[in-house]
Amino acid sequence: MTATEFKGGPLATRIRTDVAERAAKLTEQGRTPRLAVVTATDDEASAWYVRSIAKAAGKVGITCDIVDLGPAATTAEITATLERLSADDSVHGLMLQTPLPAGARLEELAGAIDFAKDVDGASPLSLGRLAAGLPAFAPATAEAVLSILEHYEVELQGKHVVVVGRSTVVGKPAAHLLLDRNATVTVCHSRTTDLAALTGSAEVLVAAVGRAGLITPGHVRPGATVIDVGTNPTEDGGLAGDVDPAVAEVAGALTPVPGGVGPVTTALLLRHTVEAAER
Amino acid sequence: MTATEFKGGPLATRIRTDVAERAAKLTEQGRTPRLAVVTATDDEASAWYVRSIAKAAGKVGITCDIVDLGPAATTAEITATLERLSADDSVHGLMLQTPLPAGARLEELAGAIDFAKDVDGASPLSLGRLAAGLPAFAPATAEAVLSILEHYEVELQGKHVVVVGRSTVVGKPAAHLLLDRNATVTVCHSRTTDLAALTGSAEVLVAAVGRAGLITPGHVRPGATVIDVGTNPTEDGGLAGDVDPAVAEVAGALTPVPGGVGPVTTALLLRHTVEAAER
Repeated sequence: MTATEFKGGPLATRIRTDVAERAAKLTEQGRTPRLAVVTATDDEASAWYVRSIAKAAGKVGITCDIVDLGPAATTAEITATLERLSADDSVHGLMLQTPLPAGARLEELAGAIDFAKDVDGASPLSLGRLAAGLPAFAPATAEAVLSILEHYEVELQGKHVVVVGRSTVVGKPAAHLLLDRNATVTVCHSRTTDLAALTGSAEVLVAAVGRAGLITPGHVRPGATVIDVGTNPTEDGGLAGDVDPAVAEVAGALTPVPGGVGPVTTALLLRHTVEAAER
Repeated sequence: MTATEFKGGPLATRIRTDVAERAAKLTEQGRTPRLAVVTATDDEASAWYVRSIAKAAGKVGITCDIVDLGPAATTAEITATLERLSADDSVHGLMLQTPLPAGARLEELAGAIDFAKDVDGASPLSLGRLAAGLPAFAPATAEAVLSILEHYEVELQGKHVVVVGRSTVVGKPAAHLLLDRNATVTVCHSRTTDLAALTGSAEVLVAAVGRAGLITPGHVRPGATVIDVGTNPTEDGGLAGDVDPAVAEVAGALTPVPGGVGPVTTALLLRHTVEAAER
């Protein structure tokens, strides 16, 4: 048996097409949507990702400003920059890219992002509203997990979904989005004893830990749907998921890396930016 | 086998003693801690609970104002009242009691409570900060679950904890507090299929659904620790938990209702008020 490949491409294309139409309308009204990405790192993978966002934004008619504060930026400088861009009416979406300088925490700094512009759902207020079932932008990666499941018509109601990873940007918000869809949700992490026993009971498994190949065939229930959020750099300059490719022999469906969650994440970030500009 | 009874009384007494000392010091400084409880209901159980908070507050030297807007209050009136009390320097802790008038949502209205005074952790910002691991007042009931587990030295790290109930005031914040303690956490709810299979695998089971006797001996793993958050009114004017008392024959430990989570919840609410006043 080989798992169905749940590619992100078709869904990402559909989202980008919709975004491009909405961005064009806004531009006609003299309100070209603008996304500002604040960076404070010289990490190469991060720089590559930010350039890919800017490129994708350009293709759908969204202006993307990369505001690079450099790896020596202080938390005060980062906060001041986020506050300035939050107050700037020409900026509709605002995100702070990780990694951050030592000692700086995304969750803390993101509190300086205006809630209405928090298109990557990074601020505690956005997370809390999401958890409480109130309108808010979800972190794009977490929402991408749900969007792929919806696109491929995976039933969630009453199903047991196991999320491996408890980060504020993926695991926790994904858990809340899954609960909202009436899934029963288990959150596992690095301290979980007997991970395989828990993941092996999951009808849907979401891997979001950032460790290449952590999820092996022995972790997966036969026929389960597996969503791989991992994007771990490989020695040859490529990307590896958190899921061992051999899982395809056990799972019913599996998202590829690259080409699964990633493209949908970027497309949703752009959709959030257009939504913010439409308000 | 009969489960050890995890009573809340001893812990609640210890917390109240500490609170009384701290409140006395604040009073000496001319800063008597003050808690304002806003109500908008004629529900008898709610009124009884609020009076019990006021009484407990009085005993430890905290002033408690009950601001009753009546069951016909509009959301605008409730919001205006919360804003007024948030701006009032003599008020240190502020909470909005449920139930609320039809159409009003606690999560939405609680956004009007100043974060620093949100002693029952009801606002989306408090919930989001809690989920992100940043300092915030947790909802007192959710924190009481953790405090009882800590008081009775129940190991949580790596353990599988199942929370039944996904409310914003108990289930969700309790799940985040448990994750913080390195437990593996499953959240079940009314749409969970085969509840007994999931709860039966739990080393610690937290019942927070509001349905008397929902958790039967067949739901519990032998020797498990069971925390009963339910406070369901009985026909004879008493309280029944979410856990069938017969569970005591299977569980290793069980909190009684009444006398388990309840007294600790009230004590923690008072401690939060003193903490807010100390700032």
